[in-house]
Amino acid sequence: MVESEKMTEKEYVSYNEVHKLCQEGAEILKNFKPDLMIAIGGGGFIPARILRTFLKEPGAKNIPIQAIGLSLYEQIGQGPLTATPEKEQAGMEVVRTQWLDFNNLEQHAGNLIGKKILIVDEVDDTRTTLHYALSELQKDVKAQAEKLGRKDEETSFYIFVLHNKDKPKHAELPEDMISEGRYIAARTVPDIWIAYPWEARDIDEQTRLAELKNQH
Amino acid sequence: MVESEKMTEKEYVSYNEVHKLCQEGAEILKNFKPDLMIAIGGGGFIPARILRTFLKEPGAKNIPIQAIGLSLYEQIGQGPLTATPEKEQAGMEVVRTQWLDFNNLEQHAGNLIGKKILIVDEVDDTRTTLHYALSELQKDVKAQAEKLGRKDEETSFYIFVLHNKDKPKHAELPEDMISEGRYIAARTVPDIWIAYPWEARDIDEQTRLAELKNQH
Repeated sequence: MVESEKMTEKEYVSYNEVHKLCQEGAEILKNFKPDLMIAIGGGGFIPARILRTFLKEPGAKNIPIQAIGLSLYEQIGQGPLTATPEKEQAGMEVVRTQWLDFNNLEQHAGNLIGKKILIVDEVDDTRTTLHYALSELQKDVKAQAEKLGRKDEETSFYIFVLHNKDKPKHAELPEDMISEGRYIAARTVPDIWIAYPWEARDIDEQTRLAELKNQH
Repeated sequence: MVESEKMTEKEYVSYNEVHKLCQEGAEILKNFKPDLMIAIGGGGFIPARILRTFLKEPGAKNIPIQAIGLSLYEQIGQGPLTATPEKEQAGMEVVRTQWLDFNNLEQHAGNLIGKKILIVDEVDDTRTTLHYALSELQKDVKAQAEKLGRKDEETSFYIFVLHNKDKPKHAELPEDMISEGRYIAARTVPDIWIAYPWEARDIDEQTRLAELKNQH
């Protein structure tokens, strides 16, 4: 198989598969009991909402979800979103389209200091977006903690993605996050194009192709 | 059927049905060409992300999604979310858990003045949440327009929901929004409990029950 063909290999994923990947992830995440989810939009919205269902314990409150919007620079405007929606390219710059609303967040869930915070996205491609989200959130927490004289409290971050692509990454995550199991990918896959159901123009065909894959 | 039984009537909806409801809605919404989507979280996250796929025109940019978080007061904390997740009760107060990030929004999509803005949620139950979202956004736009001396520009709001419940509402939407077709519900249903797939603990059973319903 030539390289160009290899790069267009697609794995079709159905909604029900996404749902089950979140269910599996929640089994692990339950042990950590996250206080707050931060969904990276648009891809993280759907897994975050599903995770909330599985992380909710009877009688306990729902885990609040805050959304943030991150785009790789060339994706804003024309971008490669039609061709390879989840593709992160080298040298791309992450820009914020939305960030946490600390004002409303603090009123209802308190600030981030000392919390267990779960960052959710659909795919870890080059790791650029996740690295950005984590390091910026860590900066925010550090600034808040210094301001409030609460530097001794430990804030823990966790990451959940549906798919991690086994490929060279353009950015790193902290070693202790990996070694402590705070980075959770429901599946690790080769560097293929993952076709998520929310991008499908024909959802019946998408589901058929996803089911076909499971028969092999 | 006694009232208590009637109230627990459930309609199971599959993910693929949700996807197709968004596809149908997008056919109408395309005519309006919205500039920006505002997803009311958590319920609006999933339809908004799916709508983005169907509203994207080839070669054109993705429609930006901003998320807002609204909860009815008694739902924060213990709330009735396990029993009837989409239920809005009389006298409940809407509170913001997250609002628009005007700072980052303006840098990448401009401000809201003169825009066509699509508000997305999963269900219109008592209309309380939608009324709140619309009227607060209108206030924000008005304040921005006054500040910038752009009071003459017309900002249009649109609403999309998957399901509108045919029942007495606790709040109104503007008459011209309804008469001009700027309120779009993919389905209008009786006052039943709509079981959305992202709330399902057993997604295979949920899908089976949803498909069973369509055979009747």
